[in-house]
Amino acid sequence: MTSVDLNADMGESYGPWVMGQDAALLEVITSANIACGFHAGDWDVMAATMRTAVSRGTGIGAHPGFPDMQGFGRRRMHVPPDSLRNLVAYQLGAARALAQTAGGEVRHLKLHGALANMCAEDAALARAAYEGALSVDPEIIVMVLAATAQQEAVEALGCRWAGEIFADRAYNDDATLVDRSQPGAVIHDPEQAARRMVEMVQAGAIVTESGKRIPAAVDTICLHGDGKTALEIARSVRGALEGAGVTLEVFSGRTGAV
Amino acid sequence: MTSVDLNADMGESYGPWVMGQDAALLEVITSANIACGFHAGDWDVMAATMRTAVSRGTGIGAHPGFPDMQGFGRRRMHVPPDSLRNLVAYQLGAARALAQTAGGEVRHLKLHGALANMCAEDAALARAAYEGALSVDPEIIVMVLAATAQQEAVEALGCRWAGEIFADRAYNDDATLVDRSQPGAVIHDPEQAARRMVEMVQAGAIVTESGKRIPAAVDTICLHGDGKTALEIARSVRGALEGAGVTLEVFSGRTGAV
Amino acid sequence: MTSVDLNADMGESYGPWVMGQDAALLEVITSANIACGFHAGDWDVMAATMRTAVSRGTGIGAHPGFPDMQGFGRRRMHVPPDSLRNLVAYQLGAARALAQTAGGEVRHLKLHGALANMCAEDAALARAAYEGALSVDPEIIVMVLAATAQQEAVEALGCRWAGEIFADRAYNDDATLVDRSQPGAVIHDPEQAARRMVEMVQAGAIVTESGKRIPAAVDTICLHGDGKTALEIARSVRGALEGAGVTLEVFSGRTGAV
Amino acid sequence: MTSVDLNADMGESYGPWVMGQDAALLEVITSANIACGFHAGDWDVMAATMRTAVSRGTGIGAHPGFPDMQGFGRRRMHVPPDSLRNLVAYQLGAARALAQTAGGEVRHLKLHGALANMCAEDAALARAAYEGALSVDPEIIVMVLAATAQQEAVEALGCRWAGEIFADRAYNDDATLVDRSQPGAVIHDPEQAARRMVEMVQAGAIVTESGKRIPAAVDTICLHGDGKTALEIARSVRGALEGAGVTLEVFSGRTGAV
Repeated sequence: MTSVDLNADMGESYGPWVMGQDAALLEVITSANIACGFHAGDWDVMAATMRTAVSRGTGIGAHPGFPDMQGFGRRRMHVPPDSLRNLVAYQLGAARALAQTAGGEVRHLKLHGALANMCAEDAALARAAYEGALSVDPEIIVMVLAATAQQEAVEALGCRWAGEIFADRAYNDDATLVDRSQPGAVIHDPEQAARRMVEMVQAGAIVTESGKRIPAAVDTICLHGDGKTALEIARSVRGALEGAGVTLEVFSGRTGAV
Repeated sequence: MTSVDLNADMGESYGPWVMGQDAALLEVITSANIACGFHAGDWDVMAATMRTAVSRGTGIGAHPGFPDMQGFGRRRMHVPPDSLRNLVAYQLGAARALAQTAGGEVRHLKLHGALANMCAEDAALARAAYEGALSVDPEIIVMVLAATAQQEAVEALGCRWAGEIFADRAYNDDATLVDRSQPGAVIHDPEQAARRMVEMVQAGAIVTESGKRIPAAVDTICLHGDGKTALEIARSVRGALEGAGVTLEVFSGRTGAV
Repeated sequence: MTSVDLNADMGESYGPWVMGQDAALLEVITSANIACGFHAGDWDVMAATMRTAVSRGTGIGAHPGFPDMQGFGRRRMHVPPDSLRNLVAYQLGAARALAQTAGGEVRHLKLHGALANMCAEDAALARAAYEGALSVDPEIIVMVLAATAQQEAVEALGCRWAGEIFADRAYNDDATLVDRSQPGAVIHDPEQAARRMVEMVQAGAIVTESGKRIPAAVDTICLHGDGKTALEIARSVRGALEGAGVTLEVFSGRTGAV
Repeated sequence: MTSVDLNADMGESYGPWVMGQDAALLEVITSANIACGFHAGDWDVMAATMRTAVSRGTGIGAHPGFPDMQGFGRRRMHVPPDSLRNLVAYQLGAARALAQTAGGEVRHLKLHGALANMCAEDAALARAAYEGALSVDPEIIVMVLAATAQQEAVEALGCRWAGEIFADRAYNDDATLVDRSQPGAVIHDPEQAARRMVEMVQAGAIVTESGKRIPAAVDTICLHGDGKTALEIARSVRGALEGAGVTLEVFSGRTGAV
């Protein structure tokens, strides 16, 4: 029987500033990527978000990013590999501690923002980031953007991992994302997003704009919670998958190449 | 046979700024209190300090403080107890992670600066801070300022703890520190400091300025590394203890009241 | 003819995090207190807020606070007077620069959060804060909480100042605020708030809960923009003052005692 | 008569962390580039450094950098031009305020670290940074790395500027710096550095490794204060220039192309 995980970023509020629609998203997703206080979140937001995730049985992930709160971790920073290892270990450790205080534990790791983008292009950088996490928890499941340098890195490391596709982005025939400057790059129609996800999950493949199928690790689908459309897409994707008989559950992680 | 631990704060450099004489201190101490990135230290400094401590067999402690780098955690901040729990858990988690990457583990926790001072006066606040740590690691040994509200808190919690006295501060007859404004409050003479420490360790008591002996948990002696005198005091204390046949070793922690 | 100013805090967004209802408030107020990047706001938020205020002819104020973004400047921090001078000068200088880039200039200064509260209790601390501002701009108008230590400080300094009362807080007979724990301390009814403000402005006095009138510098009324009620109160106060023939305009500042 | 300015970075301490040898450097230089609290320095360090510079008659410059204290502003960050304008205006404003509190004023602006490097390669980025400064003070003198995109930007803007050469770096025949990986790229010998500086200042040209002379705006020489050699080089350069009859004085700024 086919199954897939639905993930979203959460715990991105900071001090008195609220961000996102965590409560609504938690009714849709099976895994939560929780910010670790460097690009978003703080100890109090983390603790509260962990508790909510634990109470719902949502899979908990650490979501480390660059130390750049004002830029929300979206500005590229050039951090040497050794420092990146420490940066990721620090944030994962903090997340693990706050998960424990909430009675849960961190199952997976997903990189955030510019750090994620840089690691999707550079397997050596991705490797450094993941080594930082694995040195803290060798059993952690690394969530990677399917068919990118992130995936190369986890295959080379031999660690547990899960492949991720986007609900709202179109793919080129080489499995890269269609550039945002192109028409159709971002999918705004909840039904179209849902249809595509059912197709990709059932095929175990990325289906490109041209209709080409590229076998891929379709373990989890990235959903967003910012804005009304994003939430509609999230709900539509979940509904369509359930309607198609796909089981929605936390990924268990794989090892080796696809 | 009598034994005692010698502790000092370490890993207080930050980015390109160097602080302290960690290498010299490591030859004297048996336990290191390592800053966790809030009042001093960063992920890279922590990783490097952890590695050095592991290589020397020094006991590793997390040394959390207020989130105030510019003020070095020395400015009092009024943090509610719930938030303080999270603040301590976050920093301890980060320290545990970086200890793991260095092949070691965090054995103890010691509060820093204004946070330590406030918790030495307020057992409820101390309790909140320690609960944050214990929720992450129930076996952690909490280092407390002997005969203060910090000690009250650990006795009430029933957790493992170790009592700490100062090598360079005079005590009043109620076991509080002589105010810095008074003559003799701070001890600058290495031999005097050493003599006092041997006396207190052998007596298992705080010896006050007037000569009164107050039975106390003399498990570890706080040494400093800033300035030439501090290092001389540290070496003098160690030498005198060794000369008196006291074993210098990492504390194993106690539970219950003195 | 009687006139009064209406002020509110603005520019409290930070990076990607939005706070407040600045656009709606700007239609009500005559003076804006703009956060300076320490407890809220950043260079981009400041620049955008300054431009909007300039385009509407709103009086621009610098609104410095403690360096504590996560705590929104609401946690008391113990900063020595000399450092407080520099802290205020730094933030005022940054605000002046961004006002200039927007084609405007900073007319007034108002302290934020815990810093404001501490200076309302301690005239020496308030004096240090205001000296920091006056050393940068001797002509700046210092907005003070009427009948507090803040007012004592400006009277002693001999600088230009404006007195402020709250639209939504009840006053005791000694001109202090009724403690929030007491019933009626905070006014939630827009009509009641409006009625009180008209009475106080016309009387040039603080009218206490018991009906006592304490002559005061009623130069500006503090409004809030958080929550629907706050905005309704703001609009109600403005409407009632206009209806009573009170001119709403930026204060010009006074010197000396009331 | 030939004259030149000697400049160095100062005020790079932070909170309790001391950096540099400001007192010794101040006896050598004529202009100080003072950090503005983003990559180094804080309000207290800035105030103290400004006071010292004022007391010695040293020309005061604002030295803005990226908001990255832990990375000392040496990590490249991708900041959009509009945001960069605000970033520079904010820091310059803060520096102007603290200069005023010290009884002085900011004469020049020099970019720091990775921001400087990026602007030396990209004239559009440099232009945005300088526009931020000029919108605050149209008369400010922009210090640029001679013969780089920084210089292109000031020539295009038509503002006042001063050209800078390095005392301790070798130049290629296209006026770029010899890459640090090449032998001889960094000059460690105080006498060699001094000889080169006298030659370049008297020639009004960059003298390359091969001996080629490229006419350049040799208005100021960049000296360093970190490490014993740097200070020796600084003193040696100053001594040799004085011996050669060159007047050491603050630059007055030029406009237009070389």
